[in-house]
Amino acid sequence: MQFSSSLLENAVNEFAKLPGIGKKTALRLVLHLLKQDSKEVNQFSEVMSRMRSEIKFCQRCFNVADADICSICANSARKQEIICVVESIRDVIAIESTQQYNGIYHILGGVISPLDGVGPDQLNIDSLVNRVQKEKTEELIFALNPNIQGDTTIYYIQKKLQASAIRITTIARGIAFGGELEYADEMTLARSLQNRLPVEKYMSH
Amino acid sequence: MQFSSSLLENAVNEFAKLPGIGKKTALRLVLHLLKQDSKEVNQFSEVMSRMRSEIKFCQRCFNVADADICSICANSARKQEIICVVESIRDVIAIESTQQYNGIYHILGGVISPLDGVGPDQLNIDSLVNRVQKEKTEELIFALNPNIQGDTTIYYIQKKLQASAIRITTIARGIAFGGELEYADEMTLARSLQNRLPVEKYMSH
Repeated sequence: MQFSSSLLENAVNEFAKLPGIGKKTALRLVLHLLKQDSKEVNQFSEVMSRMRSEIKFCQRCFNVADADICSICANSARKQEIICVVESIRDVIAIESTQQYNGIYHILGGVISPLDGVGPDQLNIDSLVNRVQKEKTEELIFALNPNIQGDTTIYYIQKKLQASAIRITTIARGIAFGGELEYADEMTLARSLQNRLPVEKYMSH
Repeated sequence: MQFSSSLLENAVNEFAKLPGIGKKTALRLVLHLLKQDSKEVNQFSEVMSRMRSEIKFCQRCFNVADADICSICANSARKQEIICVVESIRDVIAIESTQQYNGIYHILGGVISPLDGVGPDQLNIDSLVNRVQKEKTEELIFALNPNIQGDTTIYYIQKKLQASAIRITTIARGIAFGGELEYADEMTLARSLQNRLPVEKYMSH
């Protein structure tokens, strides 16, 4: 792409650094900003800078937070004895959007994946084990992506917590609602057969 | 979407204001920025603010520019007697990318479209007429999108320039290279039949 202005070119290049944004999309976004008031573009810039410099990570669950403790951990209406273990902030937002979960979270920051060079030490696993012991947690719900890395991580953490009397569960895996049996992979189908539910239990959900 | 941090929420909302960026994409982009160095995010912000506040519009052709005159107009190697008339900056970038055009440009800032409330007065048409008279332009090439609004605009400007001896052309319309005849609309196909070229002329391109 040929630009007649280096200011424009730099802006397009900055946008194009973002994941999934190509040069053409970047140009479209920059030309949109160019049409806005200076004030609005400054606000856009300031919000991004502030977000990066002022955002904190909850000292308890590692979620993003405005203070030392995130609003979910600080909410006394939520069950503090149930911890949902997730990989990332995105998963917290997905689960919160269901409005079906009333416990708190623990964000691992990834899953054990030797091929990607991610071992247990790089994840928030020790802090989880400490929390469970200190906070008298009753249940740990694993909500990790259903793959080898997720299962390895569950297995590793479960081993570490063997001594404690905590209940450890994982979210149900099976055919997605609205999904079609014939397109499900064999592993999912096999597991969902093994873990079949009595109909009255299923219907009560 | 439920957020545990208002800083994160604000950043996502700002990104989601951009055209074609939904909340989920905005979140993905913000979380990407969150993973970058503060320095890089600040650079991103600064480039956007600077772009908006410092960018200029060429006083001659209305292209974006770093100075009063854009780099294309200021380039003495380009033919100053040929002006390509386009709707927007994006079209300049598209044509420049072909590396086949060696004249200069004039950006209308839109096309005449009564339905959208855009009349000739809101466009850079008077300045074009003045330019043509003052700069001794030899040829005006219209590179507008092939639709009613584009054609109306060409007709309007052509009328205004009737008195001058300037050559007025428009870029060829027809079946796109790699396009398929059976999927072309009737108007395009009809026009490309009317405006057929001798084969030797076509092959020489």
